[in-house]
Amino acid sequence: MDIIAFTRGVPPAESFPKEAIFECARRVLRDNSAQVLQYGNGAGFGPLREVIASDNHVDPGRVVVGQGSLQVLDTLGRVTLAKGDTVFIEQPTYDRTITLFQRAKVNLVGFALTDGQMDLGEIERALKADPAPRYFYVIPDFQNPSGAVMALPVRERLIELAHQHGFLIIEDCPYRHLRYFGEHIPAIFELAPDVTIRMSSFSKMVSPGIRTGYMILPADLAPSISKFAADTYISPSMFDQAVVVDFINQGYLKEHTAYLVDLFRPRLITLLDALDEHLDSKGAWTRPQGGYFVSFSVDQNLTAVDLAAAREVGLALSDGRGFFIRGGERFIRLPFCALDESQIEEGIRRLARLIG
Amino acid sequence: MDIIAFTRGVPPAESFPKEAIFECARRVLRDNSAQVLQYGNGAGFGPLREVIASDNHVDPGRVVVGQGSLQVLDTLGRVTLAKGDTVFIEQPTYDRTITLFQRAKVNLVGFALTDGQMDLGEIERALKADPAPRYFYVIPDFQNPSGAVMALPVRERLIELAHQHGFLIIEDCPYRHLRYFGEHIPAIFELAPDVTIRMSSFSKMVSPGIRTGYMILPADLAPSISKFAADTYISPSMFDQAVVVDFINQGYLKEHTAYLVDLFRPRLITLLDALDEHLDSKGAWTRPQGGYFVSFSVDQNLTAVDLAAAREVGLALSDGRGFFIRGGERFIRLPFCALDESQIEEGIRRLARLIG
Repeated sequence: MDIIAFTRGVPPAESFPKEAIFECARRVLRDNSAQVLQYGNGAGFGPLREVIASDNHVDPGRVVVGQGSLQVLDTLGRVTLAKGDTVFIEQPTYDRTITLFQRAKVNLVGFALTDGQMDLGEIERALKADPAPRYFYVIPDFQNPSGAVMALPVRERLIELAHQHGFLIIEDCPYRHLRYFGEHIPAIFELAPDVTIRMSSFSKMVSPGIRTGYMILPADLAPSISKFAADTYISPSMFDQAVVVDFINQGYLKEHTAYLVDLFRPRLITLLDALDEHLDSKGAWTRPQGGYFVSFSVDQNLTAVDLAAAREVGLALSDGRGFFIRGGERFIRLPFCALDESQIEEGIRRLARLIG
Repeated sequence: MDIIAFTRGVPPAESFPKEAIFECARRVLRDNSAQVLQYGNGAGFGPLREVIASDNHVDPGRVVVGQGSLQVLDTLGRVTLAKGDTVFIEQPTYDRTITLFQRAKVNLVGFALTDGQMDLGEIERALKADPAPRYFYVIPDFQNPSGAVMALPVRERLIELAHQHGFLIIEDCPYRHLRYFGEHIPAIFELAPDVTIRMSSFSKMVSPGIRTGYMILPADLAPSISKFAADTYISPSMFDQAVVVDFINQGYLKEHTAYLVDLFRPRLITLLDALDEHLDSKGAWTRPQGGYFVSFSVDQNLTAVDLAAAREVGLALSDGRGFFIRGGERFIRLPFCALDESQIEEGIRRLARLIG
């Protein structure tokens, strides 16, 4: 039996825009090899920083491009966090972010997502009781792993709290442009660029093998992050960055985003329909309008998720506990973009068998 | 007046094998886009690890590819070094290595290069007096910044000392294949792969903008380094790595190395001739048979190097102190590969004026 893998949030190989990437690679090598094949700046390739800056209405000096956005988050942590500093996160959240902050030995405080939203009262109580966090890391749009979208009033209140308590919001938004239904909600960075670090990536929009992500940092912080990056890896790949900025400048990013939205929308519909059909009484799930993930919480009356048994019914699942500081035994992340519709349906049938 | 820059050790833009890189990019996108554009492994792209392993007669499990070799050195330090651990280095040495180890808060002990060689007696005395180092970082072939080549008896004695005192030699060898005269001396890794971490890069042999370097680590250390790398940046650029391994497999690396040797040899001859002609009584310099650098030590009877005055005579120089833990005021690194012969001659004429 073929295993159906609801594990990593990766794009499907058939979606990679390889012809466009090839064209961009040809153009940048032909027109700009002296710069593209040479050492570069720790903050990244100038033309890409300028495009990101212009899209976000900030000075290019605030943009630091890295080999994926996680790399820049790691550098930010190394430069600005000390052991024992407090960082707030949603719970669940992106597993690699938890690992990275735990490695930095910070005091990591998680706020539970219930029906996709954090409890503002709980956050306010924590801010009164404890030292203010340095950062509040959130993924407001189609969160990894839950699929949740942070409601506008929550975004607005977080911004007020950031102003009051002097913390920065790290808004990680790699899925933001993958909206299949409904209307965009303003990003936290758009509402309050003064208290927000925007973090995003081209992994989901162009290719993850071309490792290019970025942060938009406060102007007084960006130079020290760039310097530390240069002292660690000199510069991110100039070739990759040049391909990405050419991909944007040629209009391919816009076209490709529309293609991805059309490709992924029916996969999401299929997944939600299959959950309705097969798992109605077994737990609760999110109903995201975009992104990569639906998450399923197994009903408390049933046993926790057994990963070994999952493989026996032909299913590969991530260990839900990776997305939590504590807990997560009943949490199942369902990344749907890299599976076709028949795999999604069959996968949910198997999931129903597993927890039935 | 155009400034002649004896500053960074970068390849000349005209040497970049852009047509070959383009061909490789086309082939890997055509034949293997599903892998090349996807997320990869923290240790790097399998086919590249296999080629490196095979060239070095080791198991691929020992090879960790990173976004430049400095990145892997940083990861090695983060995983294995604690504050106060001892690390030995040559003095002078690669400035970014000093920065990186200082950042790790290790006890950094430098051994002076005199006529290109460390004093073995001094090393032996240090090993008796102090706790053994965890690592001894060396660049035996055409050292950055001095140009020195470590003599075979020194290599052999270092290996004996590593066995006796239980430290690992980190052999950084990005310039090894750029030999313009004379015979290769066996690499430390070739003589003693059990006590040596080999560290190298394709920056000088293919392109530094394609950020690809690697380490060959002890088998028991490689998995933890790969895991930490994955938790920091998921994987190095798959696209870059695929281009590099295709460049090797097509035979371009061999061809391009021969081309670089022919390109750089007359530049080195010109530099050494110009030093003989213009700076005979002003200091001492190395006479390397390869690599990127000649180094010049200003005679102690003259004043230290004045970088501001250098710009006034049309010369850009690196601050020699960057290559030393302490000292370096009279040290001038002369990277010659990115300058043509007339620039090299004129540069040395200006240098003679500066320190004359």
